[in-house]
Amino acid sequence: MDGIDVVIARFDKFPEVVSEYSYPIYPDLKKILSGLAITKEVDLDSLVSSHFVLASEYAKAVSGALKRAKIPAKKIRAIGLHGQTIRHIPKLQATFQLGSGAALTALTGIDVVNDFRSGDMALGGEGAPLVPMFDFRYLRSKKKNRIVLNIGGIANITFLPANCREKEVMAFDTVPGNMIIDPLVEKYFDKPYDKEGKIAKKGKIDEKIVRKLLLSKYFHQRPPKSTGREMFGREYLKNFISLRPENAIATATELSARSIANAFDLLPQKTLRLHPTQIIASGGGVKNNFLCLRIKELLPDVEFKTSDEFGIPSQAKEALAFAWFAKAFLDDEYIHLPKTTGASKKIIVGSLSKGK
Amino acid sequence: MDGIDVVIARFDKFPEVVSEYSYPIYPDLKKILSGLAITKEVDLDSLVSSHFVLASEYAKAVSGALKRAKIPAKKIRAIGLHGQTIRHIPKLQATFQLGSGAALTALTGIDVVNDFRSGDMALGGEGAPLVPMFDFRYLRSKKKNRIVLNIGGIANITFLPANCREKEVMAFDTVPGNMIIDPLVEKYFDKPYDKEGKIAKKGKIDEKIVRKLLLSKYFHQRPPKSTGREMFGREYLKNFISLRPENAIATATELSARSIANAFDLLPQKTLRLHPTQIIASGGGVKNNFLCLRIKELLPDVEFKTSDEFGIPSQAKEALAFAWFAKAFLDDEYIHLPKTTGASKKIIVGSLSKGK
Repeated sequence: MDGIDVVIARFDKFPEVVSEYSYPIYPDLKKILSGLAITKEVDLDSLVSSHFVLASEYAKAVSGALKRAKIPAKKIRAIGLHGQTIRHIPKLQATFQLGSGAALTALTGIDVVNDFRSGDMALGGEGAPLVPMFDFRYLRSKKKNRIVLNIGGIANITFLPANCREKEVMAFDTVPGNMIIDPLVEKYFDKPYDKEGKIAKKGKIDEKIVRKLLLSKYFHQRPPKSTGREMFGREYLKNFISLRPENAIATATELSARSIANAFDLLPQKTLRLHPTQIIASGGGVKNNFLCLRIKELLPDVEFKTSDEFGIPSQAKEALAFAWFAKAFLDDEYIHLPKTTGASKKIIVGSLSKGK
Repeated sequence: MDGIDVVIARFDKFPEVVSEYSYPIYPDLKKILSGLAITKEVDLDSLVSSHFVLASEYAKAVSGALKRAKIPAKKIRAIGLHGQTIRHIPKLQATFQLGSGAALTALTGIDVVNDFRSGDMALGGEGAPLVPMFDFRYLRSKKKNRIVLNIGGIANITFLPANCREKEVMAFDTVPGNMIIDPLVEKYFDKPYDKEGKIAKKGKIDEKIVRKLLLSKYFHQRPPKSTGREMFGREYLKNFISLRPENAIATATELSARSIANAFDLLPQKTLRLHPTQIIASGGGVKNNFLCLRIKELLPDVEFKTSDEFGIPSQAKEALAFAWFAKAFLDDEYIHLPKTTGASKKIIVGSLSKGK
């Protein structure tokens, strides 16, 4: 919601990020988008209009990225578009990403593949996670167990046992990444995020609150499972209201670290003992040194690396996966792992709008 | 909104309707859909959920149609899906059709092409009409001017001058078809529509009201233009409230007839004088004898025919056009006439979700 991340990538044996670009979402639009995410009743005219406004911002982001990289649009095979999730409610079989793919195609003249979650959900799946197939394809190891950890607003992991086959892959949301830390930092310090985790480092963790929040059912539920921002909205922030600002940030950061570390309890313990295990981390949370430090401290037997060390820029990994999803759709390749989403069968996910 | 129309068609030189099927929309869903169409603020959870509920009803309709026709799903190349318009507001560049194409694909295993209007609208077009290319392709004549008239909720025409080229095609919404008549019949007579126009026939037309309503700007605006149901919602029905029931139906029917006939004033008069002109009518309104009679009386020089006489069942024509749109998308054929929609350029409209 803070900005539009664009990567230009080439897929050969291994994905190569040619260029990264970030385009801001202007404040009024950000306000509309955050409003949609937390409001029950919405103005339908404005909602439908935002679907197109956001697509036109996506078009500007794409055009900016191409200009910066000096690559003409006709050299791009397709855009993989996630869009802005405004609802993701597996129990209602309902998910919606704002930002019209058809409009983005019309405005850029480039093929767009989007709407990757709806088909899975129609088949009883969680509509998430989708990135595990990318992780399986490009990050599994013969000799090591790997936990591919992405820390965005939500944090999620893909578990790739050493030398695993597709059906052994596990993946789920561990849950808060930055989505509690960031709003608290904005509220108390008027900054978008806790740079390098400096604020958290100065604060004192309230262990009682962390323990209380970790009792929540979701953390203990066995995968497949996924969640949305709804679970950690304004209401949830009230859990930190009694704390002094630094302490609130430290406690929220600890909650993220602990929920990530605790997720290891949901993995097959035998497999974890069989081979050494590496974390491959990516996402905005990787820049939060304090958060990463806590994860390392909580998981002393695990080697902590970032995806950069494997040739995938940690800030570009999610966008890169969606670029690959677009390619996979066009090549009739499956990216869909029903075992991780809970869907009743394997399908080709995504919808194509043709740019030429 | 009353039901889901399915046609199974084969496209050769001329489209052949293999089978027609109609599947009811259950009352609670109809209530939700009509609510969305006229309400300003909506519950976002319920909206997103309806997107999937409706797709699952579409899947049942498709499955029912295939079963009835004894055709296996694998014999179907693609489904062309319009979806249920809940907003169509060209001046806001906003349109949205409910009923997820990705979900319909997942549930049927058949390729789905849908979302035919968004790309046009992103390019500044009205997002409508789309059927003119179908009319141009299959219904133009060497020696006669043809007005292809569809009377659904909204009525619209495609003008095909004798032996015309693509760029000479004109098309626009003439506006009320059944969308005023039906709610009034439901209100006063508790029936879904005025069967054969029998009620209107017994009523007396209030000429003053008809004239007043025909002053509305839209009727006189030059094409390209299109409109949505919003313009003729609950508020509009109040114009008929002072009349006795039969007279209200007669007056609403006359408004439809007159707005259709008046649309001829917006066509190039020279072309109309050059060749004889035929109307080819289709849609639910064709069954309203009184409405058709009034159109004939108002346009004595024009030959009135229904599309049935040209091999296209008049109740299946719209659905048939969308089946053809799906085919056209897959074959990289344009169905998009910027001249009739006002879009800035020609594009391939639609989005594909892959069923296999």
